[in-house]
Amino acid sequence: VNDVPTNQWFDLLFRAPAMSRVFSDRGRLQGILDFEAALARAQARAGLIPAAAAQTICGCCRAEDYDLAALAQASVAAGNSAIPVVAALTRQVATSDEAAAYHVHTGATSQDAMDTGLVLQMRQALELLATDCHGLGEQLAQLAAEHRATPLAGRTWLQHAAPTTFGLKVAGWLSALDRCAGRLADLRPRVLVLQFGGATGTLAALGDRAAQVTSLLAEELGLQVPDLPWHAQRDRLAEVAAALGLLVGTLGKMARDLALLAQTEIAEVAELPPAGGGGSTSMPQKSNPVGCAAILATATRVPALVSIMFSTLPQEHERALGGWQAEWETLPEIFLLASGALAHARRIIGSLRVDPHRLRANLEASRGLIYAQTVADALARSLGHAAAHDLVRRASHQAARQERHLRDVLLEDQQCAAYLSPAEWEQLFDPRGHVDAAARLVDQALAAHQARAAAVGKAAP
Amino acid sequence: VNDVPTNQWFDLLFRAPAMSRVFSDRGRLQGILDFEAALARAQARAGLIPAAAAQTICGCCRAEDYDLAALAQASVAAGNSAIPVVAALTRQVATSDEAAAYHVHTGATSQDAMDTGLVLQMRQALELLATDCHGLGEQLAQLAAEHRATPLAGRTWLQHAAPTTFGLKVAGWLSALDRCAGRLADLRPRVLVLQFGGATGTLAALGDRAAQVTSLLAEELGLQVPDLPWHAQRDRLAEVAAALGLLVGTLGKMARDLALLAQTEIAEVAELPPAGGGGSTSMPQKSNPVGCAAILATATRVPALVSIMFSTLPQEHERALGGWQAEWETLPEIFLLASGALAHARRIIGSLRVDPHRLRANLEASRGLIYAQTVADALARSLGHAAAHDLVRRASHQAARQERHLRDVLLEDQQCAAYLSPAEWEQLFDPRGHVDAAARLVDQALAAHQARAAAVGKAAP
Amino acid sequence: VNDVPTNQWFDLLFRAPAMSRVFSDRGRLQGILDFEAALARAQARAGLIPAAAAQTICGCCRAEDYDLAALAQASVAAGNSAIPVVAALTRQVATSDEAAAYHVHTGATSQDAMDTGLVLQMRQALELLATDCHGLGEQLAQLAAEHRATPLAGRTWLQHAAPTTFGLKVAGWLSALDRCAGRLADLRPRVLVLQFGGATGTLAALGDRAAQVTSLLAEELGLQVPDLPWHAQRDRLAEVAAALGLLVGTLGKMARDLALLAQTEIAEVAELPPAGGGGSTSMPQKSNPVGCAAILATATRVPALVSIMFSTLPQEHERALGGWQAEWETLPEIFLLASGALAHARRIIGSLRVDPHRLRANLEASRGLIYAQTVADALARSLGHAAAHDLVRRASHQAARQERHLRDVLLEDQQCAAYLSPAEWEQLFDPRGHVDAAARLVDQALAAHQARAAAVGKAAP
Amino acid sequence: VNDVPTNQWFDLLFRAPAMSRVFSDRGRLQGILDFEAALARAQARAGLIPAAAAQTICGCCRAEDYDLAALAQASVAAGNSAIPVVAALTRQVATSDEAAAYHVHTGATSQDAMDTGLVLQMRQALELLATDCHGLGEQLAQLAAEHRATPLAGRTWLQHAAPTTFGLKVAGWLSALDRCAGRLADLRPRVLVLQFGGATGTLAALGDRAAQVTSLLAEELGLQVPDLPWHAQRDRLAEVAAALGLLVGTLGKMARDLALLAQTEIAEVAELPPAGGGGSTSMPQKSNPVGCAAILATATRVPALVSIMFSTLPQEHERALGGWQAEWETLPEIFLLASGALAHARRIIGSLRVDPHRLRANLEASRGLIYAQTVADALARSLGHAAAHDLVRRASHQAARQERHLRDVLLEDQQCAAYLSPAEWEQLFDPRGHVDAAARLVDQALAAHQARAAAVGKAAP
Repeated sequence: VNDVPTNQWFDLLFRAPAMSRVFSDRGRLQGILDFEAALARAQARAGLIPAAAAQTICGCCRAEDYDLAALAQASVAAGNSAIPVVAALTRQVATSDEAAAYHVHTGATSQDAMDTGLVLQMRQALELLATDCHGLGEQLAQLAAEHRATPLAGRTWLQHAAPTTFGLKVAGWLSALDRCAGRLADLRPRVLVLQFGGATGTLAALGDRAAQVTSLLAEELGLQVPDLPWHAQRDRLAEVAAALGLLVGTLGKMARDLALLAQTEIAEVAELPPAGGGGSTSMPQKSNPVGCAAILATATRVPALVSIMFSTLPQEHERALGGWQAEWETLPEIFLLASGALAHARRIIGSLRVDPHRLRANLEASRGLIYAQTVADALARSLGHAAAHDLVRRASHQAARQERHLRDVLLEDQQCAAYLSPAEWEQLFDPRGHVDAAARLVDQALAAHQARAAAVGKAAP
Repeated sequence: VNDVPTNQWFDLLFRAPAMSRVFSDRGRLQGILDFEAALARAQARAGLIPAAAAQTICGCCRAEDYDLAALAQASVAAGNSAIPVVAALTRQVATSDEAAAYHVHTGATSQDAMDTGLVLQMRQALELLATDCHGLGEQLAQLAAEHRATPLAGRTWLQHAAPTTFGLKVAGWLSALDRCAGRLADLRPRVLVLQFGGATGTLAALGDRAAQVTSLLAEELGLQVPDLPWHAQRDRLAEVAAALGLLVGTLGKMARDLALLAQTEIAEVAELPPAGGGGSTSMPQKSNPVGCAAILATATRVPALVSIMFSTLPQEHERALGGWQAEWETLPEIFLLASGALAHARRIIGSLRVDPHRLRANLEASRGLIYAQTVADALARSLGHAAAHDLVRRASHQAARQERHLRDVLLEDQQCAAYLSPAEWEQLFDPRGHVDAAARLVDQALAAHQARAAAVGKAAP
Repeated sequence: VNDVPTNQWFDLLFRAPAMSRVFSDRGRLQGILDFEAALARAQARAGLIPAAAAQTICGCCRAEDYDLAALAQASVAAGNSAIPVVAALTRQVATSDEAAAYHVHTGATSQDAMDTGLVLQMRQALELLATDCHGLGEQLAQLAAEHRATPLAGRTWLQHAAPTTFGLKVAGWLSALDRCAGRLADLRPRVLVLQFGGATGTLAALGDRAAQVTSLLAEELGLQVPDLPWHAQRDRLAEVAAALGLLVGTLGKMARDLALLAQTEIAEVAELPPAGGGGSTSMPQKSNPVGCAAILATATRVPALVSIMFSTLPQEHERALGGWQAEWETLPEIFLLASGALAHARRIIGSLRVDPHRLRANLEASRGLIYAQTVADALARSLGHAAAHDLVRRASHQAARQERHLRDVLLEDQQCAAYLSPAEWEQLFDPRGHVDAAARLVDQALAAHQARAAAVGKAAP
Repeated sequence: VNDVPTNQWFDLLFRAPAMSRVFSDRGRLQGILDFEAALARAQARAGLIPAAAAQTICGCCRAEDYDLAALAQASVAAGNSAIPVVAALTRQVATSDEAAAYHVHTGATSQDAMDTGLVLQMRQALELLATDCHGLGEQLAQLAAEHRATPLAGRTWLQHAAPTTFGLKVAGWLSALDRCAGRLADLRPRVLVLQFGGATGTLAALGDRAAQVTSLLAEELGLQVPDLPWHAQRDRLAEVAAALGLLVGTLGKMARDLALLAQTEIAEVAELPPAGGGGSTSMPQKSNPVGCAAILATATRVPALVSIMFSTLPQEHERALGGWQAEWETLPEIFLLASGALAHARRIIGSLRVDPHRLRANLEASRGLIYAQTVADALARSLGHAAAHDLVRRASHQAARQERHLRDVLLEDQQCAAYLSPAEWEQLFDPRGHVDAAARLVDQALAAHQARAAAVGKAAP
């Protein structure tokens, strides 16, 4: 679209190239042309137009034969993208066979072509995302298994809470990712449906052949036939946007955790930057978590974009004025941003540096405070919950204030020391119990993941 | 919560009373207490605490026994709602049986109680919505059937386009409503799950009894056991919000259509106001579509509220600082607003006045222009599509300018008149073909609705 | 940026070309280079670097000399747009004068260049918008004056309420537009400020010359010096976004009114489509309000984009991870969409067809009901407000039901008829009083507009 | 509003009590009644109604005399809050003086009362916020002054970058807060305006006395007279929402920084919890930053609420259907949430614990890496920028890998060591230069703050 200056600097940072091809100008054009070609074939099969005309029309439905800049220009006056395409296609067909040109787009309205074209783009896009979700899932499953018993300081409200394992954190990301991938799979039959209704969604121009043509057209395109044309009922598109928003938010959670773990003072993980990257114009020591930042930026943007798709739902009558048009750039943008976040996630997880030594050191750095709950629970058997909790709370504050180990503070109170045997005191400040508990949950989550993956494998052709 | 001044003036306008009870302060408290009671029973069944203690605890789990204002006050310092409840419950239990108080909330963390309590509230809320969706579906199905062949001017971009029927418009609303209800049913198994993880989601305090207690606890509450605790993986809640957003948007589309059809100049339908309502302090003739306005206001608000739930997803580590807290009032508010929109929709549809005379009069008021496509298609058989479209376009503009009927303009061009027989000319300006086509689609959509309803009926116990 | 497929089909529909040039890839690059050139000049003036080096650097700061695709590609690894530009500039300078290359970007950090470059782009963008706001204001002022006394059916809740004038409606748009333009003017001194802080915002690398260089740099660029560097304090940018959102919403209100007035059944105004536009692939009679749809689509999208800018505000420490990056495409997009809406508004108002005959006809079409308030007020002098309101309400409903004129219904009740003289009855159903009242307000608003325009004129150089 | 169950549990956590009083049901009612009382007084002064009637009306305008629950109930059918109030007021007046009741609400429409009432509530609310902003500003100014030279590890992308001071961080918060307070002050004359237009905004019912009554009414209420009534031009309200959003985002930035600095591993600051708060049901050692979490939750919610106010702007004709109604609960909620965030901020800053020892220790913990930029700049004088940057980058990575100090790594390369004298080497790894630079900026920012405060002081009466 060569007379508008480009504004694509950050495309490679925020969007995956394969998805950019799907939602390019050419991708949009080919989607519309695929609809027109299939419509011609379907009408020929129904005996409504000559087979030769259909063949001529199909032969003119290659996006590379059209001038995208001219089509974009013509869309300003037309108010949508299909009107100029249909006009250009008709002219193109007419140069081969004037009579065939009469049969272009018969019975359809421009929104039929635009919406079905979009559905075809979405089908490709959902394939791309499914592949990347599967790949990321495998990476996370392996990482979780590897670190199923690697101790990690569990943190709540950004404070040390109680020990867990790095593997359990990763299993949490994986479990959520699986749900997101599952939702994207589940919505396909609802969403990958034909749009075909003609001027006001009645298909009146086709009379009693409407159902037959609809059915053949859906078959040509490999799409489902919906209850009704959906020119102004757009819940399916908003549903797709929402499912993508859940995926992006889930990746955002992973990026948030990683960015926090990578802080200089914590340094439990490091994102390996893309080749030659992550630096600073001023600071030579910097290695910035560029991918995490890109994912978090996307997770900041996408919720608002999803809300646009919800805001557009109250569309007027048989075709909207404003709401429909607001979808045109929004839904593709959500797919594009989701693809970029997913690509970053795969790269980050694929080359993540995890430092188990540091994980363990940080866990112990709070001088036993991270075991306070375990200690309180143990003392509660003698003291009751409230008194034990209270005792340990006071000891914790003292330990923090004096920079001493919680155990030392507790043991200097001889009455307290006597509640438990020395061996028990030792065990209380050992992460093992926490680690074992976490590892069991990791195993359980990985088994569930494998079961889901196997089920998907069976479901696939 | 008696020391904060109330701010509930519009509750009855925007929220359904039954839903307000579910998401009241008392509802929240009862949800937390139900978790604590079930936890005690589960641990007693597992032999971890005495049965008598469990019984005492359960006996103290009635919301009406607690001072809500004091609990709310204590939540400010605590930073969440469960800490004061657990403390109050423990005190209450201790007054009956001091030993039993040691067993309150064992192994759990406050978020376990808050989240599971919320899930229990959501279960009730989803029931209420399912009932109302079913009821509205029945109303719409009846309305669509009644008007399957009532001619309506189809409108695109707020302009007359081509004829359709009022029944087809209603069937469009119904089909979308069914999808929304279907999504809310589909997400139940994913969403109605137990939250139980203890301090950092490892259940370490329960050692190797964790899985058993989890399973018994879920059984007590009638909830599913999830892969893993989900303290900081909140996609399920955002998914619920999104499904509610789709429902609200779908109701918004219906309200938009109705409000436009009820305009003074169009007057095809009228919303009967609630008893004594819809008036104006200044204008005695007014009958405002109050319910449509309430639904559209809700459809303007909910997309943004849904986006908050998506924005909260990147929650930190094992429990979040900010994101989790942002959910607390947001998700209940979405349920509440959805319930109000649905209640208005039921009332509006239940007493809608449809004026078929006016529907027909408006259709004809554009003096044949609404048949322009049909005419152009008919002439295309002689002239080709482009020339026919062009001829009719020019005639349409002339007819509009001269306030004449399109047919009269076309027929005064004798060459044009000759392309078709007088009977054909007559038929072109008759809505019958459009009406028949629309009615077929209505029948198809109603059959699909009945099939879904039957399937749901069978699935229900 | 030639290796990413373009996705610009709708640029011309939703964005103004002049604004697209400002926020193009080249515009972004030139902004960064302008900062680097000015920095070199400022440091030369401060005696920190040789004048010749500064000259060489400035000579290399032409955007057209750089490979945008390579810069975009390098930004993926770098994580921002300035790092590769500084590197490329340094190489370019080194080819002329290796020593001069040592002086590129001294003391600055990449965010200094990016943010100041953005501010320079915004200055151009605000100029463009000011010009268009002024132009639209003149158009609206003329339209309001022309129709100051053209009767219009005032509509509330989409129902006829009481008469007003078309000019008063237009004056309402104008008054809001003036406020929006005023806000955009007011924020310039707050927003058009230099960003210059070095690595963490201390300018430590410049030692005690920091203030001097800052001041010279700001002078070179014609920008204000802020209190402090603002790498992570982004309220200024969100403020700009909000002011643009107000403008877009105000244009949306105008487009909403116009689209409703242009409905087939109302037809009081018509948007003249762009040459050859507004049609339909299926319906030859259609003339769609394409510009209104584009504005309304923008008004649906921009609020969410503005919310992203607000969501990014809690940025981490001295430079953010996620929030900053989320701004990069969002703020330019808001400018671009605002520019497109404004361009459509100018085109629409510049060629709007207003049909005073139809305005008057619609006013009278509700058979006197639109005068119900006036009548009730007049009767209240005899009956009291409540009784009069009640009487007229009942008569209104009877008139509507029987399709009779309200006056006829009232006058057949002889007691009622006697409250007023025949002349008074006549006058009550004449729009003149309403029209006069509205025209006075129009005059008042136009005077205020002229006063503001004169003040702006004086303020300008 | 006693027949709807309360849902106010989190009011005290998220909202300030004084603001809750302003935006309570009673506050809303009093706002409407204040309008009605002032209208009666203004009309009496204009000689349009008897002074005694005005006095009677005013005597009935006390909120505490009305049944809020009944008014809320009646609002459902009425569709707005003023219709039932006007009716109840009229009845109340009639019990004293039947004739006076004829003069209630004359010439006005319900939206006049609702909007002006809202403006009166906003005036109180803006006062409350101004007081709190001023108070927080004083606290921050003192904290910044105290720590103007307290070294802090500057962090970008959550990584150590270069030294700065804690005072400069605080000065950044202060400077942004001042801008936010300034915006809220600036918008008062634009926003604190009367709404008075009658049925369709023409004031036709008052004939040629309209301007006089408007002027007297504004005088009675101490409000400005706007250009025009603004029933459907709502940019002023969205502007208020945006300014509140900027304030909340600015507080969110402060809370984000504090929460990150309070992390267990960093521990440079601690939020003192409210008395007895910040704990955990499971973990006795926890001291959660409850206030930061509340502020961040608010900063997550408010951007979306602001977007609702922007989304409502395209309101239909002379009074909207949906958009207006969407404002009713949204704008008050934004004020309420902003007040709560501000109250938390004041409490947190008022009792913040800052640990300068820890600040310094963390700065040094990265073993000289935080000085890498300074070192590279120094070496650049001998080596040129690129080579120096590259040398230091490699040394930094080696130092990190080997857990050695950057200086030691550099000095073992004898060629490198020789570029600078031992004293220079020493100075490079001393934060003093950075601290001095930062302190100068703090002084500059504090001076600017004082100047602004003085100007505001002078502007106030």
